[in-house]
Amino acid sequence: MTENGFLHHGKVLTLDSMNPNVKRVEYAVRGPIVQRAVQIEKELREGVKKPFTEVIKANIGDCHAMGQKPITFFRQVLALCSYPELLEDNKFPEDVKNRARRILQACAGGSIGSYSASQGIELIRNDVARYIERRDGGIPCSPDNIYLSAGASDGIMTMLKLLVSGEGSSRTGVMISIPQYPLYSAGLAELAAVQINYYLDEAKCWSLDVKELRRALEAARKHCRPRVLCIINPGNPTGQVQSRQCIEDVIKFAAEENLFLMADEVYQDNVYAEGCQFHSFKKVLFEMGPEYSEKVELVSFHSTSKCYMGECGFRGGYMEVVNLDPEVKVQLTKLVSVRLCPPVTGQALLDLVVNPPQPDEPSYATFIKERSHTLAMLAEKAKMTQDILNQVPGISCNPVQGAMYSFPSIQLPPKAIAEAKEKGQAPDMFYCMKLLEEKGICLVPGSGFGQRDGTFHFRSVMWILKVFFIKKLTAAPFGPVKTDSGSFVPIGRFH
Amino acid sequence: MTENGFLHHGKVLTLDSMNPNVKRVEYAVRGPIVQRAVQIEKELREGVKKPFTEVIKANIGDCHAMGQKPITFFRQVLALCSYPELLEDNKFPEDVKNRARRILQACAGGSIGSYSASQGIELIRNDVARYIERRDGGIPCSPDNIYLSAGASDGIMTMLKLLVSGEGSSRTGVMISIPQYPLYSAGLAELAAVQINYYLDEAKCWSLDVKELRRALEAARKHCRPRVLCIINPGNPTGQVQSRQCIEDVIKFAAEENLFLMADEVYQDNVYAEGCQFHSFKKVLFEMGPEYSEKVELVSFHSTSKCYMGECGFRGGYMEVVNLDPEVKVQLTKLVSVRLCPPVTGQALLDLVVNPPQPDEPSYATFIKERSHTLAMLAEKAKMTQDILNQVPGISCNPVQGAMYSFPSIQLPPKAIAEAKEKGQAPDMFYCMKLLEEKGICLVPGSGFGQRDGTFHFRSVMWILKVFFIKKLTAAPFGPVKTDSGSFVPIGRFH
Repeated sequence: MTENGFLHHGKVLTLDSMNPNVKRVEYAVRGPIVQRAVQIEKELREGVKKPFTEVIKANIGDCHAMGQKPITFFRQVLALCSYPELLEDNKFPEDVKNRARRILQACAGGSIGSYSASQGIELIRNDVARYIERRDGGIPCSPDNIYLSAGASDGIMTMLKLLVSGEGSSRTGVMISIPQYPLYSAGLAELAAVQINYYLDEAKCWSLDVKELRRALEAARKHCRPRVLCIINPGNPTGQVQSRQCIEDVIKFAAEENLFLMADEVYQDNVYAEGCQFHSFKKVLFEMGPEYSEKVELVSFHSTSKCYMGECGFRGGYMEVVNLDPEVKVQLTKLVSVRLCPPVTGQALLDLVVNPPQPDEPSYATFIKERSHTLAMLAEKAKMTQDILNQVPGISCNPVQGAMYSFPSIQLPPKAIAEAKEKGQAPDMFYCMKLLEEKGICLVPGSGFGQRDGTFHFRSVMWILKVFFIKKLTAAPFGPVKTDSGSFVPIGRFH
Repeated sequence: MTENGFLHHGKVLTLDSMNPNVKRVEYAVRGPIVQRAVQIEKELREGVKKPFTEVIKANIGDCHAMGQKPITFFRQVLALCSYPELLEDNKFPEDVKNRARRILQACAGGSIGSYSASQGIELIRNDVARYIERRDGGIPCSPDNIYLSAGASDGIMTMLKLLVSGEGSSRTGVMISIPQYPLYSAGLAELAAVQINYYLDEAKCWSLDVKELRRALEAARKHCRPRVLCIINPGNPTGQVQSRQCIEDVIKFAAEENLFLMADEVYQDNVYAEGCQFHSFKKVLFEMGPEYSEKVELVSFHSTSKCYMGECGFRGGYMEVVNLDPEVKVQLTKLVSVRLCPPVTGQALLDLVVNPPQPDEPSYATFIKERSHTLAMLAEKAKMTQDILNQVPGISCNPVQGAMYSFPSIQLPPKAIAEAKEKGQAPDMFYCMKLLEEKGICLVPGSGFGQRDGTFHFRSVMWILKVFFIKKLTAAPFGPVKTDSGSFVPIGRFH
């Protein structure tokens, strides 16, 4: 203690004194395994010898990082918006220039450096509304119901923030799928909401069964007030695409049980499997007639980060609210205004996504070529993923119908499970850590997404599943195993 | 009620059932007066006749919206980052190309469309650290202590989120100045933290007195646990610049009272008044010796939105944490990872701000010319603001030493106050609404920032204070008054 008498206090902000909700937050996609991967990359750069020369990051759907190319038209327009003097440059096509002018005119002072309206630039909200109407076969969409956001994550957190209230057994309960994308569990922990798990059926290609929703809901009613049902379609991390019937069943369930529906539809253009098709919750809701379409409260999220764009760094996105109470909408608008506005470059990019080059415009042919190429590559990888992974004894992988991930189950040897437990690690975390240390492959363990007790999985971004990857996978981390198809897998044996 | 038995439930999400903390949030800078201003703009476009032809928005520090020009170098580099094919274009100076290449190399896959590390791109955090060291005369700064953010607002909310805990009388109390920037009161309402008001001394040019801090702290200890002290320097909305002595006093106070210091220093380069100088809290802290510099926990915020850049739309910013508990830092890193990453274009812009063209580089001369011009314009407007406003009877305005606003006190006639009360409006809101409806000037009433009871103010962005503005102000909204200097002010009389 000093003469001032304050040094004995120690820190103001410590693990003990900090917000306990934040402490409970977990986010596996960027968790300990990714931090270790970054360290290993540093060690490699510093010349440390490893059994591999680079870390393969299959932990996150970061398209451009893995070599996916941006769409030329998008980037040209963004360059002109950044530096409008380029509008005088003859090397840019007319449609690129027109589009840049149109966006700049919608910005205060003609600059993307100005704040926009907190809900997003009006012109862009209009374009989003028209885009949704085209997608949904003409079902009307009002730009007043569109809120632009910094990626979908921002919108999801904003809606959860509005929805969570009450104390003790009347605290808001939010139903999320297991496996889930961990933004949901993290957001619910931060808000001290009650997480209600409903399980997807791995045996039926990760499909959703309303019986399971009902089971979860009824169990939860004993200790909280369930008010929200979150759906991810196409699924992350599970890659399933919901049938129209399933969506209708979910909507009926939400209506009957008075649940607010949150539909995470950021992978709506990432559908690969034959016979699968994306159906928006909004469209199905409106096709079910006024009894539902005038009643069920729904919010749907979309983003510029996935699909053929893959522009994660721009943090572009939007949400559409349907049947939101007008007074609550005022509150929502107020809430988003505190953060001033979503990044304007992300808004501009979103405008291009919802309003791409038209057939009579000079950039159209290149745009279509680039988009088709990227989508074809993604579809090919989706197919390859399931084919290759299922060749590996001990690994079992559902078809990747959509989105960008596979979530195979892995059989871990009892000795591996025992050693993991000794170390206080989840067995699949232990497995993924070994794979990282020995082979330089960075996957996210299934425990970060949730899984049925006693089962183990990992999530891998599908584009990583090239031959060299599968070779590494089959040689690690618990020693090779001879099988019919050659020198194979980690997983069957341990020591 | 229908046969399904659910329609009688009504909405899930209503004013009654929503998060009560969100309901308590207020954000005057984009509040009802601004919404009305947007409506009026629409009415004008639709041909509705008004006593004015355009709305002058003096509600927000939105530089480019008011005609401030972006820095050419910044926008050129950003254009090249967006569309790297321009690197082959001979029309761009070499330093622009080099800088774009350097940023792109630091992005995964060489694309600003990739996610960055959640804490921000390492190269840029390094550049920020070097910038802070130069600013603070060589006091060391570690890039590990730098977190990039989506504007300063994002960083401020993140830190408050970490800091708030406890229930009832042990709930975290956060000291904020009155007047304050309403992000703070909004953030505290959202987090259900206890807001502790300390008043700035209007009679002494809005200076901060430690005696007042102590009064506020002691009063607050009866009902909460005060743990955080927020300072805005230069002041928003009050425009004062703190003396070095004052900062030292504040740091001593924080040390004695065991408070975590949050220093909002986004206007650090907006200092105009002779004899005034910006002193960073970090520098003063380290000059006070190890007894303080090794103990006091501090976070400082900065942004690309103000100063000569004014690039609000890019949502660029950073915070530096000093003496943060290492375990808490792990938690902070985890928390920011849930939102994936700050917008990468904002990060790139920040890099250019902290690492501008050097004297031997081709873009240097233009950069200096543009920057000097903007800063000179801002300084001129600061001077003009106080000169002109103080000519108006009933308005009294402190010198604008820094930042971008004036916060004059206004004397409202008793009849105006009475009419406001009848309408259930704060009297200065009533005044500002009248000014908007009759003259098309959009100001934010002092009640949105906080003020001593019985006093009334408005905040005006200073660049708006041109001659035509003051003419409008003096002719409204309660009828002109003859004074020595001509036909003048609203404020002395009512009806």
